[in-house]
Amino acid sequence: MMRSALAAAAALLAACAQAPTTPGKQTGAEILAATTPSDWRTPDPDNTLYLELATGRVVIELAPAFAPNHVANIKTLVREKYFDGLAIVRAQDNYVVQWADPAEDDAKKKPLGSALSTLPGEFAHADDLPFVALPDRDVYAPETGFSQGFPAARDASAGKMWLTHCYGMVGVGRDNAPDSGGGKELYVVIGHAPRHLDRNVTLVGRVIKGIGLLSTLPRGTGALGFYANPAQYTPIKSIRLAADVAESERTPIELLRTDTLTFASYVESRRYRREEWFIDPVGHVEVCNVPLPARTPAK
Amino acid sequence: MMRSALAAAAALLAACAQAPTTPGKQTGAEILAATTPSDWRTPDPDNTLYLELATGRVVIELAPAFAPNHVANIKTLVREKYFDGLAIVRAQDNYVVQWADPAEDDAKKKPLGSALSTLPGEFAHADDLPFVALPDRDVYAPETGFSQGFPAARDASAGKMWLTHCYGMVGVGRDNAPDSGGGKELYVVIGHAPRHLDRNVTLVGRVIKGIGLLSTLPRGTGALGFYANPAQYTPIKSIRLAADVAESERTPIELLRTDTLTFASYVESRRYRREEWFIDPVGHVEVCNVPLPARTPAK
Repeated sequence: MMRSALAAAAALLAACAQAPTTPGKQTGAEILAATTPSDWRTPDPDNTLYLELATGRVVIELAPAFAPNHVANIKTLVREKYFDGLAIVRAQDNYVVQWADPAEDDAKKKPLGSALSTLPGEFAHADDLPFVALPDRDVYAPETGFSQGFPAARDASAGKMWLTHCYGMVGVGRDNAPDSGGGKELYVVIGHAPRHLDRNVTLVGRVIKGIGLLSTLPRGTGALGFYANPAQYTPIKSIRLAADVAESERTPIELLRTDTLTFASYVESRRYRREEWFIDPVGHVEVCNVPLPARTPAK
Repeated sequence: MMRSALAAAAALLAACAQAPTTPGKQTGAEILAATTPSDWRTPDPDNTLYLELATGRVVIELAPAFAPNHVANIKTLVREKYFDGLAIVRAQDNYVVQWADPAEDDAKKKPLGSALSTLPGEFAHADDLPFVALPDRDVYAPETGFSQGFPAARDASAGKMWLTHCYGMVGVGRDNAPDSGGGKELYVVIGHAPRHLDRNVTLVGRVIKGIGLLSTLPRGTGALGFYANPAQYTPIKSIRLAADVAESERTPIELLRTDTLTFASYVESRRYRREEWFIDPVGHVEVCNVPLPARTPAK
């Protein structure tokens, strides 16, 4: 899609978002079946991570527009192979899994190389990124919607926008100080959206494939779901940037764009449920209840 | 607590719920550490189920006030050992696990005994059960809150209240007809709250212990997370009513009451986060983001 056409679509979408919601006639499955190639995008290999476990690959799309410093630092950590041989050390039911250097607190801890250990938090961004608003109210934010393929929220009066803690979002663990995280320890949401974390912690991306490899991990029995016994850790074989992996070994994936009229219709199909099963078509939708469709492209 | 004291507390709570929210000073952990025995309740053994798997026991508290006919039918199924030897046949990531008779569609299906195969849906209840409202807005309902230990919602203008699909809630699978469920197939929410199911399906209870045994099951690879291969099923050893299990073999558990001033303070501690870690104390809370505390009673 050319930029001018995209701008026109964005303007139209913005108008839609202002207008009263009108029930669509189609189901989500019908809308997805009728998409055209321009409704889909391929995530940038230079902002896509492959987390390799013995059980398979977890694919993460990074969000450099929202957290440029943390994403850059994580990419440095990845390129210098910092994560290789570390482990998933925490799995708290209905909350998060988290990985880190198990030796972080002792002399054997892995050296950081040229990456920074900590960074100032990137908890919110200026309200200057693309945003397609949902008409629905939200519990936590004045507005919610989507920005560049990610679930997001906005407070226009404060001039701020931020990513939201929906299922599958990837964030930066930190200690109490707001500048104590840097990307060495990352977590993934595997339960009900902990939206109270929004604006309290830096989100850097979203799992776009393979989250089942994380969400089914045995839960840790220590405080906060940390594993009580190192034998329970899940080793990380490696984390690689897709751009650094041979094309033949990359995971082909396409994601539904969130800045198109097709996506607006898809959201409507989640708001007004047209599947025969529904007795009450609902008429509302929460930002974390809009699954963001992914597909394997045809060869 | 005597009934009159309880009524006074309920009146006070109702007043609190109307008043502007004022930030508390304590963390949730501090409030829980200061509870007294009357803040806790023991679930009724006659409305508590033990789902026995090879990996352990899942404890479910039933909600007869909201779904009396379904709960009665499920108790008949349990007492006649209908579920024994059936299996978990579905695990859909970020959604539900579900159990059923794997032979439901063929001649070897298990006979129902004296239970009913189907019942009219109990999707909502008259607005005449106890309800402690949250002051927060909600995406899906005019009001949300808690009723008798369960997360719930209310539409006072329609004279209705209903249980909400939060993590761990247990519901009755059905086909397209609203009266096609009866309790033979039950599901448990293991992901982000699918609140669009509220008022579309009958909820009958909540997992109060052992949900990790369900949430970590391998995900099914068939449509809707059904297992493609019966070898992937998780067999159900039995489902028993706690009242039918020898006292020495019951799971001791206490749940924080939701109709006390202590609970109101606890909810405030989830709304205004006082833990040192929080930069932004949030100031909002969603009904499905209030974990309902359980504990093992002292001997």
